[in-house]
Amino acid sequence: MVLGFAATGFLGAGLFVVLADASPGTGESKAPLQVVATNAGGTTKSSKKRVVILGVGWGGMSFLKNLDSTLYDVRVVAPRNYFVFTPLLPSVTSGSVEGRSISEPIRRIIRSKGKHAHFHEAECIKIDAKNKRVICKDVSEAKVKGKEDFALEYDYLVVAVGATSNTFGTKGVREYCHFLKEVSDAVKIRESIANCFESASLPHLSTEDRRKLLSFVIVGGGPTGVEFAAELHDLIHDDLLNLYPHLHNDVKITVVQSGDHILNTYDERISKYAEQKFTREGIDVKMGCRVLGVQEGDIAFKVKSTSQLVNLPYGMIVWSTGIGTRPVVADFMEQIGQADRRVLATDEWLRVKNCEGAYGIGDCASIEARRIVEDVGYLFKLADKNNSGTLTTEEFVETIEKVRQRYPQIDIYMERQHMKGVLGLLSDATKDGEHSAVQLDIQNFKQAIAKVDSQMKSMPATAQVAAQQGEYLANCFNNMASEVHDNIAPEGPIRIRGKGRHRFQRFQYRHFGQFAPLGGEKAAYELPGDWVSIGRSTQWLWYSVYASKQVSWRTRTLVMFDWTKKFLFGRDSSKM
Amino acid sequence: MVLGFAATGFLGAGLFVVLADASPGTGESKAPLQVVATNAGGTTKSSKKRVVILGVGWGGMSFLKNLDSTLYDVRVVAPRNYFVFTPLLPSVTSGSVEGRSISEPIRRIIRSKGKHAHFHEAECIKIDAKNKRVICKDVSEAKVKGKEDFALEYDYLVVAVGATSNTFGTKGVREYCHFLKEVSDAVKIRESIANCFESASLPHLSTEDRRKLLSFVIVGGGPTGVEFAAELHDLIHDDLLNLYPHLHNDVKITVVQSGDHILNTYDERISKYAEQKFTREGIDVKMGCRVLGVQEGDIAFKVKSTSQLVNLPYGMIVWSTGIGTRPVVADFMEQIGQADRRVLATDEWLRVKNCEGAYGIGDCASIEARRIVEDVGYLFKLADKNNSGTLTTEEFVETIEKVRQRYPQIDIYMERQHMKGVLGLLSDATKDGEHSAVQLDIQNFKQAIAKVDSQMKSMPATAQVAAQQGEYLANCFNNMASEVHDNIAPEGPIRIRGKGRHRFQRFQYRHFGQFAPLGGEKAAYELPGDWVSIGRSTQWLWYSVYASKQVSWRTRTLVMFDWTKKFLFGRDSSKM
Repeated sequence: MVLGFAATGFLGAGLFVVLADASPGTGESKAPLQVVATNAGGTTKSSKKRVVILGVGWGGMSFLKNLDSTLYDVRVVAPRNYFVFTPLLPSVTSGSVEGRSISEPIRRIIRSKGKHAHFHEAECIKIDAKNKRVICKDVSEAKVKGKEDFALEYDYLVVAVGATSNTFGTKGVREYCHFLKEVSDAVKIRESIANCFESASLPHLSTEDRRKLLSFVIVGGGPTGVEFAAELHDLIHDDLLNLYPHLHNDVKITVVQSGDHILNTYDERISKYAEQKFTREGIDVKMGCRVLGVQEGDIAFKVKSTSQLVNLPYGMIVWSTGIGTRPVVADFMEQIGQADRRVLATDEWLRVKNCEGAYGIGDCASIEARRIVEDVGYLFKLADKNNSGTLTTEEFVETIEKVRQRYPQIDIYMERQHMKGVLGLLSDATKDGEHSAVQLDIQNFKQAIAKVDSQMKSMPATAQVAAQQGEYLANCFNNMASEVHDNIAPEGPIRIRGKGRHRFQRFQYRHFGQFAPLGGEKAAYELPGDWVSIGRSTQWLWYSVYASKQVSWRTRTLVMFDWTKKFLFGRDSSKM
Repeated sequence: MVLGFAATGFLGAGLFVVLADASPGTGESKAPLQVVATNAGGTTKSSKKRVVILGVGWGGMSFLKNLDSTLYDVRVVAPRNYFVFTPLLPSVTSGSVEGRSISEPIRRIIRSKGKHAHFHEAECIKIDAKNKRVICKDVSEAKVKGKEDFALEYDYLVVAVGATSNTFGTKGVREYCHFLKEVSDAVKIRESIANCFESASLPHLSTEDRRKLLSFVIVGGGPTGVEFAAELHDLIHDDLLNLYPHLHNDVKITVVQSGDHILNTYDERISKYAEQKFTREGIDVKMGCRVLGVQEGDIAFKVKSTSQLVNLPYGMIVWSTGIGTRPVVADFMEQIGQADRRVLATDEWLRVKNCEGAYGIGDCASIEARRIVEDVGYLFKLADKNNSGTLTTEEFVETIEKVRQRYPQIDIYMERQHMKGVLGLLSDATKDGEHSAVQLDIQNFKQAIAKVDSQMKSMPATAQVAAQQGEYLANCFNNMASEVHDNIAPEGPIRIRGKGRHRFQRFQYRHFGQFAPLGGEKAAYELPGDWVSIGRSTQWLWYSVYASKQVSWRTRTLVMFDWTKKFLFGRDSSKM
């Protein structure tokens, strides 16, 4: 596995430019970078293609689990050696579950893959798209000085590195705010809550000091922020105030939200319910506020409607708004002409645009579906078989049916408009509603299908999407390798401006609804369609769904034990 | 609870000298120190005496649990808000149990005391013996800037702050070695082991690099060091090598011991067994070595017998030899004329010598028992009722019987020498062995009792001793408060050079034996007397004793669940 090829004899001079890019200004003297030929042995090329997976979040993990690793030479690179069941991360902040209970060691999954997959705990600091390799750095404390960096070559690269927290450039956020993306973040928040209660219990402080220490601020009223606020409220009222009864009047939780409602991606009923519940419980929900900056112990924001400036002292503050781009992804996008984007653009098969052999899944990527308006001219020509310059309704229907699979927005649009058939699209394009005998020119055609693109929506940055993408892509990879030999017929939609069909069906997201735990053993659940469920029984549904979704029996047992422990002994407030 | 007395109006100028001592060179501008009169309200003095307890280890915790807190105004000060079941700390390094499972929140115990006890999470930075107060500092991250320090006044002070690790001034130890005194230490070690295995798995390293990363060194062959080595061996061979099979040939554990045997405070059979077991398992035990210094990745030591200098590369190193003095105790000892000592000297009633109102328990103190030779002149005079200058055997026996309770070494000596009665002491002093009619002069008397002092031994720095001391002292305190009213007759031994009896029996330590877990589900147990038990069943005894000794049902359940988890799923090697 360890190969002694020094970079000089293997790669040529271009490499050192890459390295200088990757760690500017560190001033360290560098040993020559070692490139690891990932095929076993390294001297003779095996026939297996080399797949490098970056990241072990929902996307990477799901891809790895579903991939038939006997077909490829698989290398997984990530800076942490475990997968985290992120939906339970807010529960870790309060000690309702432990960080380890929602973490599955990657090495266990790697072991189940036999000798065909390898894991390297390192951070990918550079994707070198031109040379098809990634440059990685050992960022652990045990690293061997001067040998931190190494390169891995790939045939296929799966980028699943996720995203960072987005501060929107707000001053002071990185210095003073907690985030909630990793287990270590949750552990720090838990410790910080304990610190605030202990410091506030010191005998020489003023009421003002105490109230400042016990002012907990959450910026962001999305699902994570709201769930954290609910968990924090439960922790304080169920457990901490029993242990710190003298602080009863000094605690305050405030949610600062920029939009007009919290949980504004959910059904209005859930959003309203959550707001009312929070208000009833004394959680101060400040909506329509723009944060101006954060200082030590103080956050400044502006109420949009009144332009009023507010300064709020805090003991602890959590920042939970939106997602940002990881530096390695930003650099990669620059290389492939996507510099102006926030996330990697892929096509519907999850292939990174303008970059052969690279795939993007999860929060670091989004699908740029094909717009039908851009293909209007081509489609019209395709439909107009006799080159008459006009289409009959038959020609229109025949063509749309043929390409329907390629433009999923057509189906969505028709469903939303309650249309029975493709002909319904013409009702807008023709004034009188009678279209059986109508001849369409290109303008009519464009008019008929232009509205369809309005139904193109990017998928939410959720665990559900990432996991489905990982599974989908793994299945493609599994078929890709075997198809070479078996020459199976392609199953995808027909190629626009090309010949034949696509090899695979495009990625299709199935939404199974979403939970919003609201504290006090109550939760809300929104299903696709118009179905909403709120209350105590929904919380029990939440318990059972989250237990069943655990990636292993180990974490399932641990999580269930943690819940039992919470009911028996309450949450633990020791600071460790 | 919070009182606005600024130090200036309350204490006079001396205070600021104290403060300057306490935080030299921090350069912070200080707000006036606030002194908290610990009686409720602070303006009217309640009749209750104020007890301040420093530390929540075995001593402090045991004192607190057993104290009738309705009798006193109780304040507990410690930098962490939980008690740790330290004997299981080595198990935390390997993940056999979790840190939280062996920790009991102090606030739970405080709550059980009603409103009569208070806890303050702060570090005592100065004991001001003259003014009977302690100066404390909030060292948490939530501290209020400029208000970190406060003072607590006391009538009685219980010093139970424990000890630090002793580096014996060896260079590089503080910088590069792990210690094993706190849960945070154990967690760091666990993370460090994971780091070493992950870094060693990177594909570009040489065999030499890997072997260095996987060289684990433990300095100190006492119970903690040996147990840690055993836990580490089990972790690696039971769990890690399953996940990192490629590293099988590169792992090495070395124990460096200065003495000629490991576990040299245990019975020789146990010590031998442990050495043989370790050797068989490939743990390298280097005995009779003096550590010269530690550098990054390298420890240098000298083999005493051959004067050979050895350099050993390491990936992780744990320092586990002896105990040192905490700065606050060193400073306190200087104030009360004990500057030349390593731990606080107390009398047999655990009262700190030369310091009224202060008590010392656990690792930070040791009992300086009264030497009988120092009282020879006084005792002779006491015995020689007729001032004849010589004693009859009757006078000798009568006096020794009278003071026997005061000098426990007499009993121990007689037991060791298999003597039936006090007369046996004379067999050394008289040549012919016939002493029924002998007249003793002061020289003979001295000779007869001089050897007795050789049986004075300081108690080991163990949890067992500290816990018993805490309980003993709490009982004294409980009686002390009630006796004021009830005027109960004193029960202690007679006062030497004073009148009447001591109020209480002196502290007597009962040794219940000691365990030494040796890994591989085997343990050794040494009971008082000559009884030793080694093997698999002893490990089960260990499990049941350690489960039963847990301070609460909560920790008992958690620890037992952790053990079950270990058997079911193995230990978790995620780095978090």
